[in-house]
Amino acid sequence: MKPFYHMGIRFDGKNLEVLDQRQLPDGEQWIRIDSPAMMIEAIQTLAVRGAPLIGVAAALSLALFRKKGGHLVETHEFGMALRKARPTAVNLMWAMDRMLKILDLRPEILLATADTILHEEVSRSEGMARMGSELIRDGENILTHCNTGGLATVGLGTALGVIRRAHEQKKKIHVYVDETRPLLQGARLTAWELEKCKIPYTLICDNMAAALMRQKKIQRIFVGADRVAMNGDFANKIGTYSVAVNAKFHDVDFHMVAPTSTLDFNCESGEGIPIEERKASEVRGLAAPREMRWSPQDCTVWNPSFDITPVDLVTSIVLEHSVHSQAELKAGSLKKLRDEILAAKLQA
Amino acid sequence: MKPFYHMGIRFDGKNLEVLDQRQLPDGEQWIRIDSPAMMIEAIQTLAVRGAPLIGVAAALSLALFRKKGGHLVETHEFGMALRKARPTAVNLMWAMDRMLKILDLRPEILLATADTILHEEVSRSEGMARMGSELIRDGENILTHCNTGGLATVGLGTALGVIRRAHEQKKKIHVYVDETRPLLQGARLTAWELEKCKIPYTLICDNMAAALMRQKKIQRIFVGADRVAMNGDFANKIGTYSVAVNAKFHDVDFHMVAPTSTLDFNCESGEGIPIEERKASEVRGLAAPREMRWSPQDCTVWNPSFDITPVDLVTSIVLEHSVHSQAELKAGSLKKLRDEILAAKLQA
Repeated sequence: MKPFYHMGIRFDGKNLEVLDQRQLPDGEQWIRIDSPAMMIEAIQTLAVRGAPLIGVAAALSLALFRKKGGHLVETHEFGMALRKARPTAVNLMWAMDRMLKILDLRPEILLATADTILHEEVSRSEGMARMGSELIRDGENILTHCNTGGLATVGLGTALGVIRRAHEQKKKIHVYVDETRPLLQGARLTAWELEKCKIPYTLICDNMAAALMRQKKIQRIFVGADRVAMNGDFANKIGTYSVAVNAKFHDVDFHMVAPTSTLDFNCESGEGIPIEERKASEVRGLAAPREMRWSPQDCTVWNPSFDITPVDLVTSIVLEHSVHSQAELKAGSLKKLRDEILAAKLQA
Repeated sequence: MKPFYHMGIRFDGKNLEVLDQRQLPDGEQWIRIDSPAMMIEAIQTLAVRGAPLIGVAAALSLALFRKKGGHLVETHEFGMALRKARPTAVNLMWAMDRMLKILDLRPEILLATADTILHEEVSRSEGMARMGSELIRDGENILTHCNTGGLATVGLGTALGVIRRAHEQKKKIHVYVDETRPLLQGARLTAWELEKCKIPYTLICDNMAAALMRQKKIQRIFVGADRVAMNGDFANKIGTYSVAVNAKFHDVDFHMVAPTSTLDFNCESGEGIPIEERKASEVRGLAAPREMRWSPQDCTVWNPSFDITPVDLVTSIVLEHSVHSQAELKAGSLKKLRDEILAAKLQA
């Protein structure tokens, strides 16, 4: 097994570390993950986040625990706990189900499987970047929401990976970044990544995107997803739905980019996707890079971590091997893909 | 002249104080305004804000300066500087034009005129509350943006005044409050006012309003304005336009509430309204209650203080004596009102 060092995760076969994303953009602190319990905490506090990344990180931490002598029963309990560490992200469930199924095999096989999950995600990132970047034309201004780049995945990213690839292709693009309240993944993480890649960008508050669209300053929108239903509805970071409504109203193309590991084969429509609600203090003020409150103490808040964007507002969904237009999605293209993937698994 | 003590301003005929709104909700500090220069700074730093309030406060500070022996030339210069302290709010220009026209009269007359401006605004607040509260039905959930209450005016408020009156009328209502990035007037000021009035409310991030509308949890929306064009387009706090687009998409009634002092008789449409852009640090992080940064240092931002909502997205505009439906606005009802007001002035 080769060591894997990426933007938000480091694994050398024995030691697993994740970048504490709560400290960005000013502090780059790594957290050593010595047990699945520490991984659960890192996932729940958003030290590590991004649907594809947490699936990989969870699988590695579980395999490592078993490899270092963890008991089978305890490993199973940790696997179940990791599986539900965040209720919306489906990658985590996929990854854990795959690990739990083979838990009684040799620890080396567990570790090799986690490593396979990792490298499958790397190659999915590459596929999405290739498919999605073809949609971007030279000179376009692109809006994105939340963070969907190297920090959220083990590759270039999903939506932001597509944007990065277009920049690598020397297309002249400008990125508008929604700050993405309440946790500011846009202001803290996406801006940090774009600085690192030297891609020109402008940071805005979420409520400014509509005014930009009215001024015709946005030609295209890319967002990621935490769970995709079979009809093309999907859950993504809170605020995505508002962007989608505005895109529809202003006739701006709206693309969602996700790996097939974010598809929920058992979920027919957005109504079936559970939405995590997080603690009030995140909306009452700030959770990261440090805690503060600016609204009345104990005031009532609503803090859903995600919202559902219906397929009616989607121009296309970009997966690692295919782009699905709204018409194709409505004709059942994701269900067809599911059946193909399940048939291939049965054959293998 | 009777002393006037209100939520955000105190004036006893000799001393003028404004509440430092940057310190709310936790600190209630008053700033003594000893000169128009201090008032300009208080307006520009948003220690005092709200279109109707800053018009009144500016007029009082100018009259007081002259009353305390300020030279005529200097008073004129201060009047001109106050007039352009914030470029979008039209009340400030109205109030200053009125003062500048009579600057060479006795100081007592200047002070009496400023006092008249104040009491006209008080009675306009009362009128708006009466007209607007009739639109609210028992049991409705209402969304509002920014702060348009007692802190923004010298009365009950504009949009929030309407909501407060409905509560006083014992209508059972629940208010959803947009936090209103970047300056958080919703989280800091509107929430503070609603606590004081014991009106049930829920604080949300701006990007959550769309998801609430999709869930049919919002029956009605009230916002204020900083300048209203004659065709019914208006400028209000950045983010208002996004709320209006979402209201249209979800078929939710969208009302704007403003006094006639916020009408710009010389402005035919929203395209004629200048939009103030504010400093980058407000978007890079936080300006109040204290300064901090959470995005990359020196990153490029866009920070318009207002956006334009076109009349096509407006259900009705509530003024102090009349409610104008979209159809009436499009038939020129504000121009007709302007002509009536100007004719009455000529007669007087």
